Amino acid sequence: MTTTTLHPGRDGAGVVRRTVLPGGLRVVTETMPTVRSVAVGMWVGIGSRDEAPEHTGATHFLEHLLFKGTPTRDALEISAAIEGIGGEINAFTAKEYTCYYARVLDEDLPLAIDVLADVVTSSLVTAEDVESERGVILEEIAMHDDDPSDAVHEAFSAQLYGDVPLGRPILGSVESINTLSRDRIAEYYQSYYLPPHTVVSVCGNVSHERVVELVATAYERAGALGGTAQPVAPRLSGEGAAPRSGVRLVDRPTEQANLVLGTTALSRTDDRRFALGVLNAALGGGMSSRLFQEIREKRGLAYSAYSYTTQYADTGQFGVYVGCLPGKIDDVLKICREEISRVVAESITEEEIARGKGQMRGGLVLGLEDTGSRMSRIGKSELVYDTLMSVDEVLARIEAVTPEEVDAIAREILSQPMTLAVIGPYGDKDFSSFIA
Amino acid sequence: MTTTTLHPGRDGAGVVRRTVLPGGLRVVTETMPTVRSVAVGMWVGIGSRDEAPEHTGATHFLEHLLFKGTPTRDALEISAAIEGIGGEINAFTAKEYTCYYARVLDEDLPLAIDVLADVVTSSLVTAEDVESERGVILEEIAMHDDDPSDAVHEAFSAQLYGDVPLGRPILGSVESINTLSRDRIAEYYQSYYLPPHTVVSVCGNVSHERVVELVATAYERAGALGGTAQPVAPRLSGEGAAPRSGVRLVDRPTEQANLVLGTTALSRTDDRRFALGVLNAALGGGMSSRLFQEIREKRGLAYSAYSYTTQYADTGQFGVYVGCLPGKIDDVLKICREEISRVVAESITEEEIARGKGQMRGGLVLGLEDTGSRMSRIGKSELVYDTLMSVDEVLARIEAVTPEEVDAIAREILSQPMTLAVIGPYGDKDFSSFIA
Repeated sequence: MTTTTLHPGRDGAGVVRRTVLPGGLRVVTETMPTVRSVAVGMWVGIGSRDEAPEHTGATHFLEHLLFKGTPTRDALEISAAIEGIGGEINAFTAKEYTCYYARVLDEDLPLAIDVLADVVTSSLVTAEDVESERGVILEEIAMHDDDPSDAVHEAFSAQLYGDVPLGRPILGSVESINTLSRDRIAEYYQSYYLPPHTVVSVCGNVSHERVVELVATAYERAGALGGTAQPVAPRLSGEGAAPRSGVRLVDRPTEQANLVLGTTALSRTDDRRFALGVLNAALGGGMSSRLFQEIREKRGLAYSAYSYTTQYADTGQFGVYVGCLPGKIDDVLKICREEISRVVAESITEEEIARGKGQMRGGLVLGLEDTGSRMSRIGKSELVYDTLMSVDEVLARIEAVTPEEVDAIAREILSQPMTLAVIGPYGDKDFSSFIA
Repeated sequence: MTTTTLHPGRDGAGVVRRTVLPGGLRVVTETMPTVRSVAVGMWVGIGSRDEAPEHTGATHFLEHLLFKGTPTRDALEISAAIEGIGGEINAFTAKEYTCYYARVLDEDLPLAIDVLADVVTSSLVTAEDVESERGVILEEIAMHDDDPSDAVHEAFSAQLYGDVPLGRPILGSVESINTLSRDRIAEYYQSYYLPPHTVVSVCGNVSHERVVELVATAYERAGALGGTAQPVAPRLSGEGAAPRSGVRLVDRPTEQANLVLGTTALSRTDDRRFALGVLNAALGGGMSSRLFQEIREKRGLAYSAYSYTTQYADTGQFGVYVGCLPGKIDDVLKICREEISRVVAESITEEEIARGKGQMRGGLVLGLEDTGSRMSRIGKSELVYDTLMSVDEVLARIEAVTPEEVDAIAREILSQPMTLAVIGPYGDKDFSSFIA
């Protein structure tokens, strides 16, 4: 068992320590001495990207099943244990990882670790629970389909990546959920929910030694501690699908058209991601951004208009989202294309660069007062990066971005062929001119 | 100018102070010495409830217009001022009040107060901006209509309260927005956005004296300080509409049916609201609640199923929300009715009462680490209650709830006639048997 101090912090706050338990389970903690809450996350390095085509949705299905019961707690006892002490417990599945988390008062830390470790290591995944939860997941898919501002992002990923795991929905499809068997889901559980794939991250007024002791006790009771396995290295590559261009139109009788226009962008470990962050802020990152000003403030064409970036192990996305009345879509797309061309052809201004840096800095620093955000930062870093940058290092990287770097990344990313996804009442309208 | 200490806090944290400036402007602050962010809110005691029928949506329209420009800042300068320093600025309109808020680093407090005071006191509300923003609001209405899980709550309020302000949508309707004139909106601004209707609340590592000085300076510059007006008393009554029962069905081709089943409940100042909170937690407040367990965990009939309460000055709502596939709605409604009848006929268990209290306690205490939540608590309290309870008082009130009080409130609220709103693909299906 080795413990290292990743960051010394200041005055006892922000100390980040890491221990690898026998069997490859990692525990990372960060101290926040002035808070009463503690956030606990259990991060497993499996996501929808790890699914075979016929098992689309298995990872997320499994996430649901983990709350259904263990040898010592049924579904009600799992939720009641945390809710009765006023805490929160939940989970989410992403394309490259799954996270189970709780937020409780610090005196309840032992219980939170015990319950989370119980569901992560010892769920029963019974056939009966699979059948009951299948209905719940079909409901979740239907709910998601009913929200076009959500569904359009999935249509965009499907068009951009094609029929590979990154292009498929995390929830799966009605067809794949209806055919997933109990054994197949249980196999994912047994193959991946193992200590070398798992990181426990805790943030609050806690001692690292005490957290390690509680996690070791819980894992030992589950028979999941020991052995010589080492932590699995971060995922740094993917299935290498060739990204595509083109239009995906979903014809639906909605009040608004919902669109995403974008292309592939940088991976999570690409050094140029800070420059892309500044560019994204200037183009569509807030109310003072070019897209918001042009589309909403000056012309009143939309309520919601923004750009975003997403990072994966080996690739990423840059996208612009707008929701507008169906008759306005041609004007909106024209403005989006013009603004994208403009940041490629001309530089963004020094003022925009300064503002973009301010936005990135503020988002980071203001987020750090929340135990949940800090827990996520260290847990996710341990799982998906090879290093954990300190907040000061991240701030320095943002500050160091030059106008030349922003220019270079604008030219590289935004002059690629564009992909467009649209949900709206358009029949088979031809949108291909907007990506030409 | 009088300053009072509303709560002494502990060790310099949680000190709440209140000053009334000349002209009736109130400033309340709460100290949180260990944080770097500061949250600032400007609360105005006007909401959609204050609108004449032909001006439905005027309050929310005005909220948008306040970000469009003042004599010293245009729309871009307003958002850029706060975003460039990494802060957030936004606003929301409720039925009984409107709030403009920002969250920034403490060194930027002067700027945040200056910008917020500028938009609240000195917006231009030009005819040109009204026309451009009319389009944005029509987009917001369309976006809202496209999300049935959101729209069903408005259908429920419309059915419960009828054609009175509380029953009308905050955003207004396409018709009302299209006919609202610039002068009518400006009149709301001039009549209500006055110091006696306004509360400034600030939470963070701040000194009350400094906040008062900054607010006074900003209001003085706007010519809005001085005079003998006193703060307006909290709203304690409403238009006294007779609440109704019945079914409102919105036929729409959604994947899921969305329903709210409920009735009127307690006003904001009703002492029995703590007992109702415990009852609500047990019935539908979390994953361990009866409705979640029966509808989702045991039968897999829905993804989202919960109950909630809403409070206004003179009335309130209790409602159950469920989203389910259209074919399941009869089963779901039957379970909802059974569970509601069961808490009226039998008591909830001691364990459920303890868990309900734990949930309310935890939600309160865990929320207090966030400057934004604390700023909202003190600002809203100053505006809508006649007193500000300390956190310890609230905790004591929750703790003091007895099983008899929960029983009494269940019998009183839940044996009233029920109102049902449904959005889903049902044609003119008759749902009246479910509320009989």
